[in-house]
Amino acid sequence: MEKYTFASRMHGLSGNAIREIFKLLGQPQMISFAGGMPAPSTFRPQLVADITARLMAEKGIALLQYGATEGYAPLRESISVFLRHVGVELPESQVLPVSGSQQALDLLCKAFIDPGDCILVENPTFLGALHTMATYQADVKPVQSDENGVIPEALEEAILRYHPKLVYLIPTFQNPTGITLSLERRKAVADIAARTRTVIMEDDPYRDLRFAGQPLPAVASFNHDGYVVYLGSFSKLISPGMRVAFAAGAPEIIRKMTIGKQAADVHTPLLTQAIVDEMLRMDVLDGIMAEACKDYVVRLDAMLKALEGYPEGVSYTKPEGGLFVWAELPEGIDTLALLPEAAKAGVAYIPGTHFYCQGGHGNTMRLNFSNSTPERITQGMEILRGVIAGAMKG
Amino acid sequence: MEKYTFASRMHGLSGNAIREIFKLLGQPQMISFAGGMPAPSTFRPQLVADITARLMAEKGIALLQYGATEGYAPLRESISVFLRHVGVELPESQVLPVSGSQQALDLLCKAFIDPGDCILVENPTFLGALHTMATYQADVKPVQSDENGVIPEALEEAILRYHPKLVYLIPTFQNPTGITLSLERRKAVADIAARTRTVIMEDDPYRDLRFAGQPLPAVASFNHDGYVVYLGSFSKLISPGMRVAFAAGAPEIIRKMTIGKQAADVHTPLLTQAIVDEMLRMDVLDGIMAEACKDYVVRLDAMLKALEGYPEGVSYTKPEGGLFVWAELPEGIDTLALLPEAAKAGVAYIPGTHFYCQGGHGNTMRLNFSNSTPERITQGMEILRGVIAGAMKG
Repeated sequence: MEKYTFASRMHGLSGNAIREIFKLLGQPQMISFAGGMPAPSTFRPQLVADITARLMAEKGIALLQYGATEGYAPLRESISVFLRHVGVELPESQVLPVSGSQQALDLLCKAFIDPGDCILVENPTFLGALHTMATYQADVKPVQSDENGVIPEALEEAILRYHPKLVYLIPTFQNPTGITLSLERRKAVADIAARTRTVIMEDDPYRDLRFAGQPLPAVASFNHDGYVVYLGSFSKLISPGMRVAFAAGAPEIIRKMTIGKQAADVHTPLLTQAIVDEMLRMDVLDGIMAEACKDYVVRLDAMLKALEGYPEGVSYTKPEGGLFVWAELPEGIDTLALLPEAAKAGVAYIPGTHFYCQGGHGNTMRLNFSNSTPERITQGMEILRGVIAGAMKG
Repeated sequence: MEKYTFASRMHGLSGNAIREIFKLLGQPQMISFAGGMPAPSTFRPQLVADITARLMAEKGIALLQYGATEGYAPLRESISVFLRHVGVELPESQVLPVSGSQQALDLLCKAFIDPGDCILVENPTFLGALHTMATYQADVKPVQSDENGVIPEALEEAILRYHPKLVYLIPTFQNPTGITLSLERRKAVADIAARTRTVIMEDDPYRDLRFAGQPLPAVASFNHDGYVVYLGSFSKLISPGMRVAFAAGAPEIIRKMTIGKQAADVHTPLLTQAIVDEMLRMDVLDGIMAEACKDYVVRLDAMLKALEGYPEGVSYTKPEGGLFVWAELPEGIDTLALLPEAAKAGVAYIPGTHFYCQGGHGNTMRLNFSNSTPERITQGMEILRGVIAGAMKG
């Protein structure tokens, strides 16, 4: 007999695969294409210290006291302004600051999902989202995508068939593929949401990491009659360690999320909310992003150049931004089984199977390029090429 | 037809009553005995600014990057040391920093509670905890208490009868009553947990706010065979706005909570964790607490002195610490119905019925004394006396 009787939602849940792999990859020599960490060069520790000094002097007492679950009022206001650059016009009352986008996902599942309820996801999709959905015992079903993102006809068919409570999409520089949903399809998806009265979670943490092509308006910017909830994050723009993100959408949905958040953690820390608010008001994000993109594109190019030399039968995406390249090896190569060998040779990635809600696709992998120098990327990709070539021969 | 179909857990859930009342009480003239806010004098904004400057200079890059769900390693270490003062010896691997004690409650419910599972609580108990339990559709049942806290015989009987998955106790300066569980009962409760193999959540955020009497060891300090999870918080010692608390307990339970936390918010912000860690290492908490207690006891005395002049038939607790006094008015007086009148007269409290898992007890109220000056307490309690006397006549 087990010592404790845990809830049924915990059965079969182990830790999120990425974070478990992270722990194995602690060695400093490792060239890691795992994870999705921003480059340290995008961080502004001195600015954070200066802002904190000012905040503590000007309103330290208020920031150290309890805050409202609805969020720090100045931040809600500056997020409402920030949202305009993605084409979304919403008042601050429809903005809920949260503790990372993961919490927005969690609160949306809490608001909508009873065990067995269906959620539609891209295939593959962000494994952290799959982990959250599993804790709500959702019935997660895949929708087909291609090189232009989710296929609207496939989405509508799946909605009519499965009557999902939620649809989860990452339309821009998708995690893990790096693919971006085309403008035409964004309109089509918003239209489907409204017509079928289906709530879409538009997770959009990477959109400002664009190195090429034109920025596209958010799905939430098109007419969707309150059926698209936009999730933005400052993890890739300011700091993931600060855990500040937000949800923006219909008042009824934001209200239910707020009630759920009250029960979950009362409110997001005021200090981190206020630091992000100040950085938004100081208008420093564009500069930080421009600098980051200049670095990231060189890293992406180094990775894509290395992939050109990979054995025949290896295909990969060529994203216009974001943090990830997605590679598909010939059938029969198992990237999960190959990981220990790769790690031993000094290079790491995330096996692609973890990103599929129904598993399989063992011949895929996600490669992150943001967190290594171009030299290390070239070196690591050469090591990985050798490991893959060996497996293909074997 | 409703526009959205929310999950069944949301049915009938409105916002947590305290926080809704807070919003109504925004007027600066209001003398508020509602809420449970520490006095602003306990906050150290300059110290927070100085620590942040140092942290950002010394390890800003690491603190702004993603962290581990398990928590910031130095903080786990310093919490492990901190725990010794409550008589609990646990290694840092059995400590999980979380985003406020509310999150610890949420993660324990996530780990243990299927809809319909029983949780036993004191009667009355912290309404925020009841709100979290409601989001997990727990079947919450009361256990009888007296002036020495929960009655061990009643607890054991309820355990044998209802087979609860969890028992929720606030043994020290209980919220809302201010009552402290006696030493003998602490041992008995730990013994019951072990004998009946029942997990107890020991929520202990107020213990260092002691103005009189001797500190008692935590229930978790007695032999309980891994069946007591200790929840500590820095909200009342450092800052509630920072949202740093922790759970400490058996490895299997901490592991499940960690998996749940991964899905909920990935990790608690590193900056706030690191600030708390530094304050623990600088050993400033004892000084801050001594100073706070000196203030609080004067405030408590002002409140108790005012209560002496209340009409016959009004009884109240005389706590040795914490933040709250609990008052019981004559049967038939409805403190919820009386609140608008009191607020109009310039004074606020929390109607006691919100603290009862099965409602009722409309003649009770919770009075907070930490967040007003003695003068305002005297003034507010006199206004409240008038309102109550009027209702008793009516």
